[in-house]
Parts: sequence; structure tokens; C-alpha cells
Amino acid sequence: MLTEAMIRKQVSEAAKKARQTTPLAGSITNFVTVDFVANAQLAVGGSAAMVYLPDEARSLVRLGSSFYINVGTLLPVYAESVPAAMDEAAATDKPWVLDPVALGIGTLRTELLQHARSCHPAVIRGNASEIIALADLWKLSHGGGAGVRGVDATDTVEAAETAAIALARYTKGAVAVSGKKDLITDGTHVLTAEGGSPLMEKVTGCGCSLGGVIAVYAAVTDPFTAACCGTFAYNLAGESASSVADGPASFKSAFIDNLYTLTDKLDTAKFSLTEV
Amino acid sequence: MLTEAMIRKQVSEAAKKARQTTPLAGSITNFVTVDFVANAQLAVGGSAAMVYLPDEARSLVRLGSSFYINVGTLLPVYAESVPAAMDEAAATDKPWVLDPVALGIGTLRTELLQHARSCHPAVIRGNASEIIALADLWKLSHGGGAGVRGVDATDTVEAAETAAIALARYTKGAVAVSGKKDLITDGTHVLTAEGGSPLMEKVTGCGCSLGGVIAVYAAVTDPFTAACCGTFAYNLAGESASSVADGPASFKSAFIDNLYTLTDKLDTAKFSLTEV
Amino acid sequence: MLTEAMIRKQVSEAAKKARQTTPLAGSITNFVTVDFVANAQLAVGGSAAMVYLPDEARSLVRLGSSFYINVGTLLPVYAESVPAAMDEAAATDKPWVLDPVALGIGTLRTELLQHARSCHPAVIRGNASEIIALADLWKLSHGGGAGVRGVDATDTVEAAETAAIALARYTKGAVAVSGKKDLITDGTHVLTAEGGSPLMEKVTGCGCSLGGVIAVYAAVTDPFTAACCGTFAYNLAGESASSVADGPASFKSAFIDNLYTLTDKLDTAKFSLTEV
Repeated sequence: MLTEAMIRKQVSEAAKKARQTTPLAGSITNFVTVDFVANAQLAVGGSAAMVYLPDEARSLVRLGSSFYINVGTLLPVYAESVPAAMDEAAATDKPWVLDPVALGIGTLRTELLQHARSCHPAVIRGNASEIIALADLWKLSHGGGAGVRGVDATDTVEAAETAAIALARYTKGAVAVSGKKDLITDGTHVLTAEGGSPLMEKVTGCGCSLGGVIAVYAAVTDPFTAACCGTFAYNLAGESASSVADGPASFKSAFIDNLYTLTDKLDTAKFSLTEV
Repeated sequence: MLTEAMIRKQVSEAAKKARQTTPLAGSITNFVTVDFVANAQLAVGGSAAMVYLPDEARSLVRLGSSFYINVGTLLPVYAESVPAAMDEAAATDKPWVLDPVALGIGTLRTELLQHARSCHPAVIRGNASEIIALADLWKLSHGGGAGVRGVDATDTVEAAETAAIALARYTKGAVAVSGKKDLITDGTHVLTAEGGSPLMEKVTGCGCSLGGVIAVYAAVTDPFTAACCGTFAYNLAGESASSVADGPASFKSAFIDNLYTLTDKLDTAKFSLTEV
Repeated sequence: MLTEAMIRKQVSEAAKKARQTTPLAGSITNFVTVDFVANAQLAVGGSAAMVYLPDEARSLVRLGSSFYINVGTLLPVYAESVPAAMDEAAATDKPWVLDPVALGIGTLRTELLQHARSCHPAVIRGNASEIIALADLWKLSHGGGAGVRGVDATDTVEAAETAAIALARYTKGAVAVSGKKDLITDGTHVLTAEGGSPLMEKVTGCGCSLGGVIAVYAAVTDPFTAACCGTFAYNLAGESASSVADGPASFKSAFIDNLYTLTDKLDTAKFSLTEV
């Protein structure tokens, strides 16, 4: 069983290793926040590359140390490229991170997220509503309810706890639920983290770029620690940025600067740990 | 007939309502400035989501309170998704905002803007050249001339007045012409607004994101007031940002911060009102 | 033969002319950094427009004074639109800039870069690995070796010198190799430039946007001078921005501001010149 002290040590080591080794974490991600994803990945020490074609997705999975798939803004070619990337990651044992954005607004999105089931993402990151909806889609038994959802969470993080645990047990990876408090679980441990800023809801892509950052960390550590690293970094960077921001744009700038400077302090993050 | 005082009251109320209700204004918008559109929509209190597939566009129109369509960077799938969104908005009486970027540089763009004619956008926002070109395409009688145009206006706002009035009378909505001075009309009233900054021409997406912001306001008020809200917000935020900016990037950051902080002061905007 | 003094004079004149004439440099460029490309082009005085459809690409080449093609994130339609833009530029003698990103990760990318061979780009800009790989693809004899590469350079700028010279002699244009030191050649002269900041590697799109900026300058001067203008601007803006930045995001903001304010000082850039 993990202890708080062990987690603090592991996130510290992983953050350092990411900065030292510049791991390539390729992505298929949405067009709205792709620049933020790349810049956040670079800020924490990783290397970023984005593709959309099936053969390029397969190549990039093989070239990189991990991969990030965000189904935020689909184009027709995603029907081939997303499964290609998922399959290649599964076949080559590359850890990959899934961001199941806005499940329910179209048929392709549902198909892609259904396909993800057999490819076992190392980390699933989403808001509470997305995590509940994904557990439902994958027919994993849990306590929450779900419906058609947009990009914003209508459920609380607490309400997604059982769904998150069910998903983590199924994938044998980790699940990170983002919200006012954040929840991270590997199916055995449940960690609750605090920090961040209300301004993060006023900047598009905080969730997406967190997924990309977790993918960078997944290249250098286990899924649960990777999810902790990313979440802690976002909480620390957000809290610090909100103290100097005049609004959402200056917040975003300070936030990315902080990702660059604060990732050697991940062991100072506020969290609590329980077992299930 | 509207008075200046009525307009000041209406924009104040709409700005407040947007911040209180966080209306979802989905978009199909160009890839260059999509991040700016989303962040501007969030800054004024709205919620943003972007899609490109036809079925997702229909879903998002139904889920949201308004919609924004910008034809700035077309992909093949837009041939289906843009008409789908327009048709769904018309069928469900959702107010939608059209940004008729760069009419004339390709055949699909012309087809999509022709299709828009029967779907009656609540607000049309463009630069003077785009407004004149659209009135021509829709064969609405007006005093201006037009030709093939790029993304930058080659006509003055004044030259687009009759085209804007003709479009507004046809759609029974509002038209906002952006320029050094801005012109807003519902076919009966013509409002001329001042403010902003020359630096707005040095930042890509000020026009696109204004369209997205008008869509947020169109979710909570009538088209003419929505066009005023957005235009006033941009003039105030731009004027204030230019006093602290060292160049276009610091201007953009201050501008978005201002959208977040100044939208409770829309009633202080500079404008004059006439009837036609 | 060029002298240092001549180059300083030429870059000064070109920078001024770009600010005075606002040349339109259209682009087909990747989705990650498209906003940065457009904003950098505007900052140095140009006008920006991006397209993806074949007929729009042809129109935009004709409407503009130069063009920029970056093959960073391909979609299926690029199979038609990129060759269309290249062919139109060649047919109409418009100077165009090629950024051969990540050659080797997929078949379409290779085909497009092979097609570029017969369309003689005025300037080729890339990192050392991309320049070596392109010279190999085009079967130009040179001293370096090459392999499959990602988005980051694994070769030094010095190692790419012979490949750069070979490419420039073939295209009768210029080649700019970006790195810690930058190398620019027209096949006869080899210029080495200094400046910039290590933070430029922590911001996505510094290379892409440099390509777009060179395209702006290629509209108003010869290819070699255009490559110098862009490279000098990036070195000056980067060096100055690093002195005020707290991290990569504040660096990027200061950098774009500097592109806007420092382009009247391009003649102060640090470089040395040799002949081959």
C-alpha cells in the first residue's frame, strides 16, 4: 500500500526525470486547445507532436514514449486515426492517456470511446460527468447516474468516485477526475487533491492540457504517479497564478510559466489518501 | 423606437445575465483563432464548445442556447456540417451568428454563405467588405459595390451602411460592421460605436472572437442588443488594453482580462444612434 | 558577392517595406501553431490568411504576394491542397517558403515534400535534421547522414551545412537552418547568426512562425535577405524577451511584442558571413 510520503517521493522523482529526459508524448487532440496542450507539455519538460492521419498516428506512437488521445473535436479521419493510435499503443505497450470529452453528442465519439475499452488506457482523465458517462458506456457497475453531457461537468467529483474506481480496476491503470477538488484512483487508493483556482474554468483547455501533461509523466513513471504529478502541478501552478492574475489571460500566462518553474516542488502539493 | 438610455440599460442587463447563467454558445469556427473565440466567450461569462462533424453540430445546436458559425478555414466536411448547423438552428429557433469571412476565394464558401440566406442568422458580423459582399451574394439591393476580397477590409464602414441595413431588414435580425468605427443596425436603427485600438488589427481573431461573444449575448437578449453588447465590450476592452500594452501579445492578454472585468461597464460605451 | 554592410542595409529596407506595404502571405500550416504563425506575421507588418481546400489555396496564392507551406499536421485534403498551392506558386512565380516538418513519419508527408522539389521554394526553413532529411529525399549529394526523425532536431546546425548548400543550389533560393546558432545560405554565401534564447525550445511554434515571417519578407525582398530578416528578427526578439520572462508563456508574449517593436533594428543583429 502507498503512503503519503511514498507518493511525495515518487512525484518528485518523476518530475525530475521528465525534465531530464524530455520524453516525447505524441497526441491526437482537439483543435481548440492544441497549442495549450503542446506548450504545457513543453513547460513540464516533455516533447510534443500532434498528428491526425492513421499512419502518422501509428508512427508517432512508436517514436514516442507515451501518447495522449483527446476526442474533443472530431473530423472524419479520426474514425481511422484514433483506433489506429489506440491499437498501436496497446500492441507496443506504450502508456496512453484518454480524455473522453463530451461523450454523447455524436455517434463517432461513442464508437471511439467504445474502441478505447479494449486498448486499456494507462490513465483516463476527465471531469466528473465524463468519467461517469464512460463507466456507463463500458458497462462497468458503479453507483452514479449519467446522461448526455456537454463539455462542462454537471456532476460533482464525489459523485464520480465509484465510476472512477470501476474504470481504474477495469484498465488496471489510473483515473483522474478533475474538479474543485480532484480525485485520483488506481482502484485501490483514492487520493483527493486541492489547489488550483476558479479562473481555471475561465480558460479553455486546462483539462485537455492536463491530460497532455499526464501523458508526459506516464512516459517516466507508473500511471497513478503520473496522474498525481499532473494534477499536483496544475493545482500548484493554478494557485500561484491566481495570486498574480488580473483576469483569465494573465492567469494562463502565469500558469504556464509556473508549470515551468514549479515542477520541482510537486512534493509540496496538498492531498489526502485513503484506501478502498 | 430605441433611445440611447434604453440601449444602455439593455446591454447592462444582458451582460449581467450572461455572467449569471453561463449560456452555452457552440461554434463551428476557423482553426486559426478558435482558442481566442473560446477564451473570449468564457471571459464574458459564456460556455464554449466547438465541433466539425454534421451530427455533432446538430447536437450542439440543440444543447446550446445559441450558435456561432465562422467560415474562415473550410475543410471538406464543412460542406455538410455547416448547413446542418444552420438548418438545425433555424428549425429550433436558436439564435445564431454568422461571420462571412473572405467570401469569394472558393466555391464551397460561396455555397455555404448562400445556404445561410434561408436560415436567417440573428446577427451577421463582418468587416465592411464582407458585409457588402454578402449583401451582393444575397442579391439585396443596396448602394455599395463589391469584388473578390481577402480577410482584410478594403471598404470603409460607412460604405457598408446600406448593405448592412438591407441584410438586417432581410434577416429581421441585426448586422454588426466592425472597423475603426463600428456600425450596428437592425434595419431601423443605426448605431455607431467608438473605442478599441489600432492594435486590434495586429492580433488575429479580434473579429472572429467578437462573433463568438455576440453569440453568447444572443443567448440572453435580442439580436440588436447582443451585437451592441459584444461591440461595446470590444471597444472598452481594447481601449483600456492599449494603455498598458507593449505590443500585440501583451495587448491581447490585457484585452481578454478586460473582457472578464469590464463587462459590468458596458453602459459606459461611446456610441451615437440614428434612425433610418 | 555580398558584404556584411550590404546585408545590414538590405534587411533594414525589407523590414521597413514589410511594415509599409502589409503584404499578404497566405499559409497552409499546421493546427498546433497556426495562431502563433498568424500573430507573428501581423507583428512584423504582414497580413495573414490560412486555408485548407485546394481551390482556396490556389486563390490565396494568387491574391497574396507570397505563400507559406508547413506540413506539420496533415489531413487527407492536404493530398490535394498542398500540391495545388505549390503548383500555383510555381506557375505564378510567387515566392513561397517550405517548412519540411517531421519528414519520415508517414507516406503523405513524403509525397508532398517530394512534390515540392519541382516547385522550387524560394526559402526552405527547418531544423538541422529536417534539412538533412529533405536533401536526402531530393537525392542531392551532400556530406550529412539522415534517418527517420520527429519534430525535434537530433543533428547540429553545422552538420546540416552541406545539405543546406545543396538545397539552395538546387532551388536557386535560400535555406535557413534554425538551431542554437542559425545558418542561412543561398548556395554561395553562408551566414551564421546568433541570438535568441533557450526558452524558444520551450514554446511550440517558434520555428513554424519563423517560416511564416520569412514568407512575409519574401514578399518584399529576395529569398536570402528574407531568410536573414526573419532569422535576425527572431534572434533579437528572443534575446530581448528572455531578459524579462518568468517562463515560456511570458517569454512568448514578450517575444511577439518584440517582433512588433524591434523590426526596425534588424541591422543590429549578430552574424558572420563566409563564401563557399
